Amino acid sequence: MTGGYQTDKVTRLETNLDDSSPEILGATMDKLFAAGALDVWFTPIHMKKNRPGILLSVICEATRVEPIADIIFRETSTFGLRTEQVVRLKLERRFETVTTEYGEVTVKLGLKDGRVVQVSPEFESCRAASEKSGQPLRSVYAAATRAYADRS
Amino acid sequence: MTGGYQTDKVTRLETNLDDSSPEILGATMDKLFAAGALDVWFTPIHMKKNRPGILLSVICEATRVEPIADIIFRETSTFGLRTEQVVRLKLERRFETVTTEYGEVTVKLGLKDGRVVQVSPEFESCRAASEKSGQPLRSVYAAATRAYADRS
Amino acid sequence: MTGGYQTDKVTRLETNLDDSSPEILGATMDKLFAAGALDVWFTPIHMKKNRPGILLSVICEATRVEPIADIIFRETSTFGLRTEQVVRLKLERRFETVTTEYGEVTVKLGLKDGRVVQVSPEFESCRAASEKSGQPLRSVYAAATRAYADRS
Amino acid sequence: MTGGYQTDKVTRLETNLDDSSPEILGATMDKLFAAGALDVWFTPIHMKKNRPGILLSVICEATRVEPIADIIFRETSTFGLRTEQVVRLKLERRFETVTTEYGEVTVKLGLKDGRVVQVSPEFESCRAASEKSGQPLRSVYAAATRAYADRS
Amino acid sequence: MTGGYQTDKVTRLETNLDDSSPEILGATMDKLFAAGALDVWFTPIHMKKNRPGILLSVICEATRVEPIADIIFRETSTFGLRTEQVVRLKLERRFETVTTEYGEVTVKLGLKDGRVVQVSPEFESCRAASEKSGQPLRSVYAAATRAYADRS
Amino acid sequence: MTGGYQTDKVTRLETNLDDSSPEILGATMDKLFAAGALDVWFTPIHMKKNRPGILLSVICEATRVEPIADIIFRETSTFGLRTEQVVRLKLERRFETVTTEYGEVTVKLGLKDGRVVQVSPEFESCRAASEKSGQPLRSVYAAATRAYADRS
Repeated sequence: MTGGYQTDKVTRLETNLDDSSPEILGATMDKLFAAGALDVWFTPIHMKKNRPGILLSVICEATRVEPIADIIFRETSTFGLRTEQVVRLKLERRFETVTTEYGEVTVKLGLKDGRVVQVSPEFESCRAASEKSGQPLRSVYAAATRAYADRS
Repeated sequence: MTGGYQTDKVTRLETNLDDSSPEILGATMDKLFAAGALDVWFTPIHMKKNRPGILLSVICEATRVEPIADIIFRETSTFGLRTEQVVRLKLERRFETVTTEYGEVTVKLGLKDGRVVQVSPEFESCRAASEKSGQPLRSVYAAATRAYADRS
Repeated sequence: MTGGYQTDKVTRLETNLDDSSPEILGATMDKLFAAGALDVWFTPIHMKKNRPGILLSVICEATRVEPIADIIFRETSTFGLRTEQVVRLKLERRFETVTTEYGEVTVKLGLKDGRVVQVSPEFESCRAASEKSGQPLRSVYAAATRAYADRS
Repeated sequence: MTGGYQTDKVTRLETNLDDSSPEILGATMDKLFAAGALDVWFTPIHMKKNRPGILLSVICEATRVEPIADIIFRETSTFGLRTEQVVRLKLERRFETVTTEYGEVTVKLGLKDGRVVQVSPEFESCRAASEKSGQPLRSVYAAATRAYADRS
Repeated sequence: MTGGYQTDKVTRLETNLDDSSPEILGATMDKLFAAGALDVWFTPIHMKKNRPGILLSVICEATRVEPIADIIFRETSTFGLRTEQVVRLKLERRFETVTTEYGEVTVKLGLKDGRVVQVSPEFESCRAASEKSGQPLRSVYAAATRAYADRS
Repeated sequence: MTGGYQTDKVTRLETNLDDSSPEILGATMDKLFAAGALDVWFTPIHMKKNRPGILLSVICEATRVEPIADIIFRETSTFGLRTEQVVRLKLERRFETVTTEYGEVTVKLGLKDGRVVQVSPEFESCRAASEKSGQPLRSVYAAATRAYADRS
C-alpha cells in the first residue's frame, strides 16, 4: 500500500513496428487480450525513412510474458521486444447494480481506504441497456451515474 | 490575388490505408514527390476493427492527378481515392544568398505586395553548411537568419 | 435548413508546417481565436525527410479569411495556405442556468426543429463552480447534467 | 471515368469533438457503419485549452447524410458538422476464391480498364482460415496472395 | 555527474484513459502543474474496442507522487496508475537578460562542465515583449537569440 | 535466454521537445543513427500551453549514451533527458539470399531455439530490385516471401 493505494508489479512489453499492416495489428490486439494481456494499445510513431510506424504496448503479469511474447513474434513482423517492470497504484474495485429508466446497469466502484472515490458505469452493461432501449449510450451512462448518486 | 496574396488552384488526393506496411509507405512518399507531387504527408488515424491506419494526402496540379493516382494504386493497397479542388493563397517567392560564419547559405523569401514578410533559411543549403563546418544545424539557421537581418 | 438542421457556409484554412516550433504554434492558436477564428486545431502529420510536422487548421467566416491569413503568415513560417468552402449543419443554440449543489452552472442546449437534442454544461461555468467548491470538475458536470434532467 | 478509373461523388462529414469519451466514440463508430457509412475514422487533434480532441470523419452517399448526421448529434456531444462533396476515383471490384494450404480464401481484385491492378486477400475470410487452422493471420494473407499469383 | 551532465532521479506516472472527456483532461493538466508536476503531457493512443484514448504522463519528484496520484484519481476516470523511476541527465541552468529592439528578454542558458551549450529565449518573456511591441513572437525569439550571440 | 529468446540490456533515452522545428528534428534522426543509435523515433504529444510537441526516443547500448546525449543536447533545444534500462527479448538473426523474378533479394530470418519463426525481406534489397525492374516494391516483397517459402 502506498498512500492508501493498492500496489502490484506488472511487465510492460513494447515493440516498434514498421512492416506490419494495420489490418493484422487490429486482429493481433484481440489475440493478446485473449492470452491474458491486462492492457494493449497502439501509439502512432515516426520511424526512420519516413515510415509511419506503430508502437505496440502490452501490460501483463510477469507469468504471462512468454506466451504473450510468442503471440507478438508470431503475428507481427518484429525481431525484438523491450520489457520493463512497472509498479501500479490501484484503487480497490467493487461492482454494484443500479436501476435506471433504461433498465439495470452495472457500476464499477473504485475505493481508497475503503471510501468510494471512483464511479464508472460499466461499458458492456450500458451498451446492452442502450441497445435494448434504443436510447443513446451516453444517456444510459448519465442515468447510471445519476442513479448511483441518488442512492448514496 | 486575394488581399495581396497570389492564388492558384490545386488538387488534394486522399486515401485511408489499413493494409499497407509503413516500410512501403515511406518509399511511396519518395515516388510521389518524384512524380511531381507538390506535397505528400501521412496522418495517423483510427480505423474500424482497431486498425491503426494511415491517411495518405497528396497535393498536386490538376494535370498530375492521373500519374499520381497511378502510383498510389500501384504502390499501396488502396481501391479508391478521394479528390478535391483547393485554392491556395501564396506568398511570392524569391531566393537570396547570405554569408555566414559557416559559409554561404540560401535564404527563401516570401513577399506580399512586393514586401518581404517571410524569411526562411533553405534546408539543404543549411545542412550542407552544417556538415562542412561540423556545427549544429540550428546554429546555421540562426546565423543565416541573423545574416539576412543584418544586411537589410 | 437540411433535415431540420440550420446550415451556413464557412471557410477552412489549412497549412502544413515543418519549420515552426510548438512553443510558437501554441501562442499562435490564441491569436487566431482572438482574430475571430471559429475553431483552430493542430493535427500531427508525417512530412518528407522524417519531419514530424503539424497541420494547422482554422475555420472562419469568409469575411475573416484575410486577417486570419495575415496572422498565419506573420506568426508561422508558411509560404502558402489552402482554402476550402465547407457547409455546416448546426443545432440551434440556447443557454440556460441550472442550480447544483456546487452553485449555479450554465448549460448549453442544442435544438433541432425546436426540440432539445443536446445538453452540455458550459466549460468555463463548470470550472468556476469547481474552483469555488473545491470539487472535481467532472462532479460539477455530472451535477449540472443531472440538474437539467431533473427540471425538464 | 477519369484516366481509366471509375468515379462517383460522395459526402464527407466531419466534426471536432472535445467533450466526448473515447468509450462512447468507439461504440458510435459501429452505429455509423450500421447506418450505411462507407467509411468512418478518428484523427487525434490538439484543440484549444490543451484538449486532446478527436476529429470524427465519415464518408457516405449524399442520400445518407441526414440519418448519419442524426446519429452523430445523438451519440456525441457535437453542436455542428462540416460537410463537403468529394469525388472518388475507384478501381472496379471483383471477388474470387483461391485455395490455400489453410483452406479457401476470398481475394478482392481491383481492375483498371479491365486489367487486374490490385489483389487483396479479404480480411474476414483470412481471419476465419487463420482461426480454423491455428496459423498466424499473416501466413494466411501470404498464402492467399501466393495462391492468386500462381493461378494467374 | 555522467559525462559532464548533472543527474537526478524522478518518477514517471502514466495512465491510459478511455472514458475521460478532452475538456476535463485539459483542465486536469493545469491542476497537475499546480500540484508540482515537473512535466505533464498527453499522447494519443489506440485502445481496445476502437477507442481513441489518451495516455496521460506526468514527471514528478518522488515526494510528490502521492498528491499527484490523488489529483489523477480525482479528476479523471482511472482505476490505476503505472509508476517508474527514471534517471535524468541535465544541463546546469542559468538565466540572463538581453536587450533587443523589442525590449528586454530573459534567456535561459544550459551549461555542461561550466560551458554554455544551450541558449533558449524564455517563452513568457518573449510573449510579453511580443505583445508590448506588436511584433511576431518568432521575431522576438530571433532577436533575443541574436542579442545573446552578439554579446558573447 | 528467456523462453527461448535471446536477451540483452539497452538504454532508452527520451526527451520532450516543444521548441525544436520539425525540419531540424528530421536531420537529427540521421545524426543519431550515424552515432550508433539502435533505434530512433518521434511520438506526437500534447504539451502545456497548447504546444503540439514531440517526444524523441532513442534506444542505444549503455556505452553509447554519452555521445548520443551530446548530439541531442547539441542539435535540439532540450535541457534534460530521461534514461531507463530496458531488457530486450530477441530472435537470433540470420540472412539468406533468394532468387525472384525481379532478381536476387536478401531475406532476414528470425530464429527461436534454432527454428525460423520470422521471415522478412530486407528493405534496401527489395528497393534495389524494385528500382531495377520497375515493378512495385510490394510485388518484390511478395515475390521474396514466396521464393523463401518455396525453397523451404
